[in-house]
Amino acid sequence: MLIPRRDLDFQLFDVLGLDELLGRPRFADCDRPAVDAVLDAAYALAAARFAPHAALADAAEPRLDGGRVWLPDETQAALAAYAAGGFIGAALPRPLGGLGLPFVVSQACGGVFAAANVAVHSYASLTQGAANVIARFGTDAQRVRYLAAMLDGRAFGTMCLSEPQAGSSLADIRTRATPTGDGRYRISGQKMWISGGEHELSHNIIHLVLARIPGGPPGTKGISLFIVPRYRVADESAGDGGGRGASNGVSLIGLNHKMGWRGQVNTALAFGDTGECLGELVGREHHGLGYMFHMMNEARVTVGLCAVGLGYAGYRQALDYARTRLQGRSPSIKDPATPQVPILQHADVRRMLLAQKAWVEGGLALTLYCARLVDDLAAEESETGRQGLALLLELLTPIAKSWPSEYCLEANKLAIQVAGGAGYTRDLPFERLYRDNRLNHIHEGTFGIHGLDLLGRKVVQQDGAALRSFIGRVQATITQALGEPALHAECRALAAAVRGLAAVTRKLVAVGADGQTELALANATLYLDAFGTIAVAWRWLAQAQVAQHALRDPRPTDDAQRAFLEGKLHACRWFYRHALPEANLRLSTLERLDDALLCICDEHF
Amino acid sequence: MLIPRRDLDFQLFDVLGLDELLGRPRFADCDRPAVDAVLDAAYALAAARFAPHAALADAAEPRLDGGRVWLPDETQAALAAYAAGGFIGAALPRPLGGLGLPFVVSQACGGVFAAANVAVHSYASLTQGAANVIARFGTDAQRVRYLAAMLDGRAFGTMCLSEPQAGSSLADIRTRATPTGDGRYRISGQKMWISGGEHELSHNIIHLVLARIPGGPPGTKGISLFIVPRYRVADESAGDGGGRGASNGVSLIGLNHKMGWRGQVNTALAFGDTGECLGELVGREHHGLGYMFHMMNEARVTVGLCAVGLGYAGYRQALDYARTRLQGRSPSIKDPATPQVPILQHADVRRMLLAQKAWVEGGLALTLYCARLVDDLAAEESETGRQGLALLLELLTPIAKSWPSEYCLEANKLAIQVAGGAGYTRDLPFERLYRDNRLNHIHEGTFGIHGLDLLGRKVVQQDGAALRSFIGRVQATITQALGEPALHAECRALAAAVRGLAAVTRKLVAVGADGQTELALANATLYLDAFGTIAVAWRWLAQAQVAQHALRDPRPTDDAQRAFLEGKLHACRWFYRHALPEANLRLSTLERLDDALLCICDEHF
Repeated sequence: MLIPRRDLDFQLFDVLGLDELLGRPRFADCDRPAVDAVLDAAYALAAARFAPHAALADAAEPRLDGGRVWLPDETQAALAAYAAGGFIGAALPRPLGGLGLPFVVSQACGGVFAAANVAVHSYASLTQGAANVIARFGTDAQRVRYLAAMLDGRAFGTMCLSEPQAGSSLADIRTRATPTGDGRYRISGQKMWISGGEHELSHNIIHLVLARIPGGPPGTKGISLFIVPRYRVADESAGDGGGRGASNGVSLIGLNHKMGWRGQVNTALAFGDTGECLGELVGREHHGLGYMFHMMNEARVTVGLCAVGLGYAGYRQALDYARTRLQGRSPSIKDPATPQVPILQHADVRRMLLAQKAWVEGGLALTLYCARLVDDLAAEESETGRQGLALLLELLTPIAKSWPSEYCLEANKLAIQVAGGAGYTRDLPFERLYRDNRLNHIHEGTFGIHGLDLLGRKVVQQDGAALRSFIGRVQATITQALGEPALHAECRALAAAVRGLAAVTRKLVAVGADGQTELALANATLYLDAFGTIAVAWRWLAQAQVAQHALRDPRPTDDAQRAFLEGKLHACRWFYRHALPEANLRLSTLERLDDALLCICDEHF
Repeated sequence: MLIPRRDLDFQLFDVLGLDELLGRPRFADCDRPAVDAVLDAAYALAAARFAPHAALADAAEPRLDGGRVWLPDETQAALAAYAAGGFIGAALPRPLGGLGLPFVVSQACGGVFAAANVAVHSYASLTQGAANVIARFGTDAQRVRYLAAMLDGRAFGTMCLSEPQAGSSLADIRTRATPTGDGRYRISGQKMWISGGEHELSHNIIHLVLARIPGGPPGTKGISLFIVPRYRVADESAGDGGGRGASNGVSLIGLNHKMGWRGQVNTALAFGDTGECLGELVGREHHGLGYMFHMMNEARVTVGLCAVGLGYAGYRQALDYARTRLQGRSPSIKDPATPQVPILQHADVRRMLLAQKAWVEGGLALTLYCARLVDDLAAEESETGRQGLALLLELLTPIAKSWPSEYCLEANKLAIQVAGGAGYTRDLPFERLYRDNRLNHIHEGTFGIHGLDLLGRKVVQQDGAALRSFIGRVQATITQALGEPALHAECRALAAAVRGLAAVTRKLVAVGADGQTELALANATLYLDAFGTIAVAWRWLAQAQVAQHALRDPRPTDDAQRAFLEGKLHACRWFYRHALPEANLRLSTLERLDDALLCICDEHF
């Protein structure tokens, strides 16, 4: 029960026009058959190796066994097959050892693996992210040393940001990196919440670590990025980042025991406690946060897709349950001698399934759109074009991370409800998906942090250029959708919502510029929520326009495809009737500049 | 970190006027010192015996050990102390062996125990419910046989309704009860989701079982209620329902492994598979559902209070975390050399805490109000008065069960978020409270079922008499609150919301009466949600009126009490600005008679 291939194809090719992207020079050595083959392989691997042990990886969570992290054998087998399939380097250019696929295709595969077994797949997606940083910002020598080993699965990656005293507040990290004089740095400090921080799945682990070089500026401007392998890399020229040399002084302090996402080990690590720990600087001193944000921004789209994958898996399985479980009758039928009906026939079960469908398919549309923007950016040849795309991508990234984290979690909550008491047991996957999805609100920046990022930074950058770009794209979609009379109500509603968003943004930005920063940002989380719902409404309109257009096509279409397209229209309509009005309500709250959170004193709680 | 005593006293005495109730003849042998003493004892016992092993009871869930259900020793010790304290019979009249306390006081204690350890307390609350049924509908002989043993903890109770093929649809239960000719019945069938269905915590277990007597009417009109002890009761005259006689043929099919609420064993049971299983009829043949609904209706208020207790525990602990955890700075402070601040100072953390406060204190106010109605009903001397109170209680019961199940779960979700990554680990209680609370949406009737009950049955009974009664009480509160100028905006908002609710109800009832049952009920869940929010807004206004009045009181009040009262006003304001508008939005959706759920075909999902 993964993301249906039909929907992935619809979103990638029909809505996002992947064929057009594949026609650009950047993707000259990649074509549709190649993409199809990779998607086929991803579905096959996810079904064969990832999904079957998702419940086991949850139940048999990582533990220490003789000082080593124990994990199920199935996890290792799944990841080995994944690396062998070339998925880790799927989106890296071929000259660097990758498959040269568009990022959006690699992310689509990621959504499929997340639906199958999100925790185990996360070892791989972290490694992808770390490899991308080294590929982009590392020296040639660093690429030689680490990249091939990471792409073939001999070395897995991590990102080490948080510290016990500095979770969301990176300005306060204390880990130190002292120059040794030979170009390297001695790392010392503790890192918290490190996913994949220690295990025996790969020969080596390549930690990307944020640390301060003594004498640098305080705060976020004095943070540098280092490559810190678990084991020293013995033979540098041979690209032996995947070997097991001497220990590099990275030690495990302990494991974190989580509510969900248990298939992936989460650790606290100490650097330099048990021996000298050496790191290599990535890029320039004190510029580390920028490089790490490159990794984090892609990771944030990935988090959004993980939330979507979990929500989608729950939706599909709840739908299957509702089609087969017999229970009760329509409220208009009083005769208990009539047979019980599939619960899919009950209005409230339909409500729960339609809401799930609208949220997960809308979330998929938004996250894939953002992934596609990454490709557009890579393929864009003009500097102005790149700047515009980069701004838009930065604007949408906190939304693509946060909106699915909220609404696809709600989808999992409803999937439990569809199955009732059975949904609350561990015999069915719903409760695991729900527990897993609860993390997405937290990691890679909490919902609240992203609200501040969106309202306090992204919409004010360059005098609001990113928001203007967003609105321009929304208007283009509306213009196109106006060609479908059946969508006029949705076009009007979206146009009004975007006008409201623009007005509220102007007001809040003016309040902030007037020195009332606290008041302007007090309800930033509501702003993020409303913006996200409007962005997803936009992607729903785009899907509906394509679906409506295809349904008018005189060529015969098979019944399943027609039903699929009709389903898109129903879900779009539901989203506009039930979700978009909530965004408008939040905008009106924001418009009032509600100061309730500032007026209440600490002792009033 | 239980429900603060200050809030419980405020709600019981200042808002609900418990002193007035204690002055009535029904409670002649109970006074305020007695209530205070019971509350003192409940807090002490909850803190000493229940809270300390809540995490253990979750981690070391029930398992089979040599054919018996293993539970932690601490669970047995806690329940023994609970029974010894007289809490099981707290609300039963003294002549029956109870403490003769008002139901509202017993439920307030229940909320405290739920906050401490909801799963373990549930053994006791189920026993309370079963004892109440026997006390009310049983014969004198049945009372003699079972009641004393249940009140002193030698026998625990269960309620056996669901069957594998009939979860929410009680019309379809198949368990049979065949007369033996000596006044007893031979029970055969299977029951599912039986909480406390097998354990060694008590000598005996008294199952209250719904079953069909052959030849009775089909559907819900042919269901009878039986007392079915785990062990036969040997010496009937001696009230030995708590003894261990011969096995009564009730066998354990298996344990259900749940996401949360793990401290309470949940079972599938077979009756009559392993030997003759004998039951005693309660009341009249074929009238069992009515008796069971008596238990279930009280159990539903209890479920609401459990949701509140879990939400409240999370809120208080999140507040404590936010006061002590240092992280980041105000968005207007850019200097990283300034010290980090308690996260309570961040607007978004305040938002999450204020929302939790408004939901859990509002939920507490609503559930205690309903519990107080149970007492009013018991104390009422006129038949007309009783009928009116019974109607109102029936109207509010699905709301008291469902609204806290939704919004106090949301509170637990936000409590996790306040603590960030730490909140997602099992080192802190938040994730357990969240897992526990997810059940409340499901057991004792799902949210969807209660929506149908409210809109399809409760508001149409006696030509809408219950709704009129509700509206009359809301208007009385508004009239009183209009004496406080600071509350005029809330008064207007509530009056408008209630007008909207009445109008939408009229419209939906007319649509249903017009034969369009499916359309009228299609969005019944939204109706329940909106009605619930309006009902809680009403209870918030009542609290705010009392708080505002007390703050104007010229007598000196200590600072903590003033801060507490100010906090009530802030939470009320938040509720009116953020929660009530959502109810109005749902009403406008209902007003449109949205048929989205009826138009979508099965194959469109």
